[in-house]
Amino acid sequence: MVDEFDLIKRLFAPLTAGRPEALGLIDDVALIPGPAGHQWAVTKDAMAAGVHFFPDDPPDLIARKLIRVNLSDLAAKGAEPQFLLLATCFPRDIDAGWLDRFASGLKTDCDLFKVAVIGGDTIATPGPLVLSLTAVGMVPEGAALLRSNACSGDHVWLSGTVGDSALGLLVAQGEGKGLSETDASYLLNRYRLPRPRVALGPRLRGLAHASMDVSDGLLGDIGHICRASKVGAVIEADRLPLSTAARAALSAGLGEGLTTIVSGGDDYEILFTAAPEAEDALLALSAELDLELTRIGRIVPGEGATLVDAEGRAMASGRGGYNHFSGGPA
Amino acid sequence: MVDEFDLIKRLFAPLTAGRPEALGLIDDVALIPGPAGHQWAVTKDAMAAGVHFFPDDPPDLIARKLIRVNLSDLAAKGAEPQFLLLATCFPRDIDAGWLDRFASGLKTDCDLFKVAVIGGDTIATPGPLVLSLTAVGMVPEGAALLRSNACSGDHVWLSGTVGDSALGLLVAQGEGKGLSETDASYLLNRYRLPRPRVALGPRLRGLAHASMDVSDGLLGDIGHICRASKVGAVIEADRLPLSTAARAALSAGLGEGLTTIVSGGDDYEILFTAAPEAEDALLALSAELDLELTRIGRIVPGEGATLVDAEGRAMASGRGGYNHFSGGPA
Repeated sequence: MVDEFDLIKRLFAPLTAGRPEALGLIDDVALIPGPAGHQWAVTKDAMAAGVHFFPDDPPDLIARKLIRVNLSDLAAKGAEPQFLLLATCFPRDIDAGWLDRFASGLKTDCDLFKVAVIGGDTIATPGPLVLSLTAVGMVPEGAALLRSNACSGDHVWLSGTVGDSALGLLVAQGEGKGLSETDASYLLNRYRLPRPRVALGPRLRGLAHASMDVSDGLLGDIGHICRASKVGAVIEADRLPLSTAARAALSAGLGEGLTTIVSGGDDYEILFTAAPEAEDALLALSAELDLELTRIGRIVPGEGATLVDAEGRAMASGRGGYNHFSGGPA
Repeated sequence: MVDEFDLIKRLFAPLTAGRPEALGLIDDVALIPGPAGHQWAVTKDAMAAGVHFFPDDPPDLIARKLIRVNLSDLAAKGAEPQFLLLATCFPRDIDAGWLDRFASGLKTDCDLFKVAVIGGDTIATPGPLVLSLTAVGMVPEGAALLRSNACSGDHVWLSGTVGDSALGLLVAQGEGKGLSETDASYLLNRYRLPRPRVALGPRLRGLAHASMDVSDGLLGDIGHICRASKVGAVIEADRLPLSTAARAALSAGLGEGLTTIVSGGDDYEILFTAAPEAEDALLALSAELDLELTRIGRIVPGEGATLVDAEGRAMASGRGGYNHFSGGPA
C-alpha cells in the first residue's frame, strides 16, 4: 500500500536539492519567480476514476472538480489562478460523446474562473481514466500564505461549512435514504462540485498567518499546519460550521457523526489562522464576500491538534483514530 | 480511439482563451513570464505502463525516461531545465523495493541534469502505473525556439542519429535475434534511456529558426514544423544519420527499413532549421559539444514534408502512410 506522506518524505524530499521554491514539499504549491515583484504558485494534482470520482460520474463534473481542486490549492495560498496544463490519460475505448461533455465542463469552469489551458498531454491507456492538472497562479512576492506561519495565540478560521462533501460521498454510495431530496442533492453536489474560494484567498493576504485548503479532513489538515508551524491547535467541536443539510444528515444517522465531519475530507474550504486583532477585518470580509468565515479554535504552544467539546474536554487528537467517536456535534 | 491531435484542436484549443502563453497548443511548451527578462518554458507529458514503457522495465529507467522525455522538450525550445513537478499514480499493490528503485532513478537524473523536484502529487489507483511530469525551464525573453519560425531556404538539421529507439523497441519486443549483443544492447538502451540534448538546445538560440524534439517520428515531426511555419520541407533519405547499430539492424532485416527509421519516433533528438549561413557555426558547435549535427534537408515554399532519394525523387510525403516503404537507406 502506498503511503503518500511517507513516500514524499522519504523518496521525493531528497529530490528538491534544497531549492527554496519547493517549500520542502510540505506545502500545497511550489513558488517560482515571476515577473516584476511577483511569484508563480504552481500546484499539481492527480485524480483517478474509482479513487477520486466514480467512473460513471457526469464527465463535465469530473472535469470541473479537477479544475476546482487545483484552484482551491491556489486560493488557499493567496494566489490568483491564471493557467492550467492538463494531462488526460483516457481509457482506449472512451467515446466521443464522453469527451465532448468532459471538454464542455472544462470550458465552463475555465470561463467561470478566468483561467486558460496553456499546455498538457493526451494519451490513451489500457487503464481507468487518470487526470493530472498543473495550475499556476500569481501572488505578490513574499505574500503567499504558507502552512508554516501559524503563531501561538492565533485564531483558527474556516470558510464555508465542513463535512458536506464527506456526507455527499456517502449519498453517492447509496446511503442517506432517509434524507430529503433537497438535503441529499445539496450534499451530493458539494461532493461532486467543490467551490474553490478564489475570491477569498487573495483577500487573506496580509490578514492570515498560515493557510491551506481542507482536502484530507479538517483535523488532519490543521495537523499539517501545526507540524509546519511547530505549534499546537485546539479546535472547538461546537463551533464547527455545519450546513443545514449536514445537520439533517447527522440526525438521520448518516456517517459516523463528528468523525465523518472532521476527517472526511474533500471540503475544499480555506482553513487559516490569524491574529485575534484581525477578527473585525475578517468578519467585514465575510460580509463583503457573502461567505461564512467561522472562528473554530486557536493556536497554542506545543504540538498536534486537539478537538474539544463545549467544556474544553479533549474529544480526539492527532491524525486519524476517530473511529470510536460518533456523537453528532449539534 | 483517442486521436490526440484531433482532441487538442477540437476540444482543448478553445480553452486557451487566446492567451499567447499557450502558443495555440501547437508547440511543445507554454511560455509564461519569468523574472527579469526571462520566460519560463513549461511542458507536461504523461506516460503509462503498457503504452510508453513495459510494466516490467527497470523502475529506475522508467523514472529516468520520464525526466528525459520532458527535458528533451525544454532543450529543443532552447530552455535550461530547472524544476520538475511529478504526479505518480501507482498501482495499489506496488512494492517498496520498486518504489525505492524508481526514486533512485529520479535522483540520478535530477543530479545529472541539475533539476529539482519542487512539487507534485502521489496517488494509488486500481490501474496500471501512470506518471505525469511537468518540467520548467528558463529562456531569455523572446529567445525560445518555436515550431513556427522555419523559413523557406533554411537547412533542416538533426542532432545525433535517427531510428535507434524505434529499432530498440523492436529489440525489447523480442525481435532482432540476428543482431550482435553489442548492437542489440545499444539500440535497447537508446529506447529505454533517451539522451535529451540539454547542452545543445540553449546553444541553438540565435542560430536555429524553428526547432522541436523528435518524438512522434522524424517525418511526422518535420510535418509539424511545416504546418506551424506554413512551409514545406524536403528531407534527403541518404543524408539521414544512422548509428552503426541501426545500419546493422536494417541489414539484418529488423523493422521495415526506412519506414521504421523516419516514423518510429521516440528519438528525442533536436530537429531544427537554420539559415544556410549558420552552417559553419553549427559545425563548430557540433565539434565543441562532440555531438553529431547533420544537415538532412531544406525548407521550401509550399506545404508538407517530402522524403527524397539521392536523385531527388519523392519516396514518401505527408504524415503516416509509409507502409509500402521498406528499402533501407544505406
